[in-house]
Amino acid sequence: MRVLGIDPGGRYTGYGVIERGPGGLVYVECGVLAPRADATLPVRLCQIGAGLREVIEELRPDVVALEDVFHGAHARSALRLGHARGVAMYVAAQHGLLVHEYPPARVRKTVLGHGGATKGEVAVIVRAVCGLKTAPKPDAVDALAVALCHVLSGAAPALSRRPRLGRRRA
Amino acid sequence: MRVLGIDPGGRYTGYGVIERGPGGLVYVECGVLAPRADATLPVRLCQIGAGLREVIEELRPDVVALEDVFHGAHARSALRLGHARGVAMYVAAQHGLLVHEYPPARVRKTVLGHGGATKGEVAVIVRAVCGLKTAPKPDAVDALAVALCHVLSGAAPALSRRPRLGRRRA
Repeated sequence: MRVLGIDPGGRYTGYGVIERGPGGLVYVECGVLAPRADATLPVRLCQIGAGLREVIEELRPDVVALEDVFHGAHARSALRLGHARGVAMYVAAQHGLLVHEYPPARVRKTVLGHGGATKGEVAVIVRAVCGLKTAPKPDAVDALAVALCHVLSGAAPALSRRPRLGRRRA
Repeated sequence: MRVLGIDPGGRYTGYGVIERGPGGLVYVECGVLAPRADATLPVRLCQIGAGLREVIEELRPDVVALEDVFHGAHARSALRLGHARGVAMYVAAQHGLLVHEYPPARVRKTVLGHGGATKGEVAVIVRAVCGLKTAPKPDAVDALAVALCHVLSGAAPALSRRPRLGRRRA
């Protein structure tokens, strides 16, 4: 099972792909999509969507994992985040991929064992698990963390191929 | 100049197309995209995107007009709205269309002459201007209103063909 984690954002969108094979976890790739800051919002969203399409078509994930949003966010930033998040979900659904959402605390708890872990601790674990020599950029780390959370949560691969409408979150 | 107005929403997305021809305003079409309520969010967004793609490819607008959002919205509803709005902008940008945003009060003021107009008053004017026998659904009315706002604001057609990055809202 190959999982694409996405961390959509108003400015940067991180992505990270992890595979659960017979021999354990395998790190595939991670990166950050950075649309031009001086482009209009629709153009930036177009660049994010095109980047995600490229990642999906090249790396062929079986499922997408997305962080559920920070509920305490300000309405303005929630809207900004929503734009990028909507495009990520749209592109995933266009490719027939199921999207699983995980709250931030659940991601930290699954990856580190406790929900109160810092960003720095998450980065250390993600880097170690993926066997990376240098730390990826923060948005890529967050994307890998949510992908890792999905893999470690043990969602059965069959689930990702049997969509049921209206089902509750795993 | 043919304008596609879009009113994206968490549940329904309205659209309305108006043309400014040599003989004045011409109503083209309006409608509401209503994804299945029991579908997952990514699937609903996929249905909204597919519907907008179909509208754009069939009716060939020159430009898109979108209502700027209600700033006082709750973070949760802003996020929901953002998802649909992001998809609308993405699909528009994919088709090379410029997106113009108008605050709700500006739409009402342009269409009715004062920013404090009620939804009912907007519906009456939109119906009259478009020469419709029955009132369209509320989301379609809002979409027609923002399309009308763009046409009446007199944004030069040339503007929609000369995108400048980082430009301010009209």
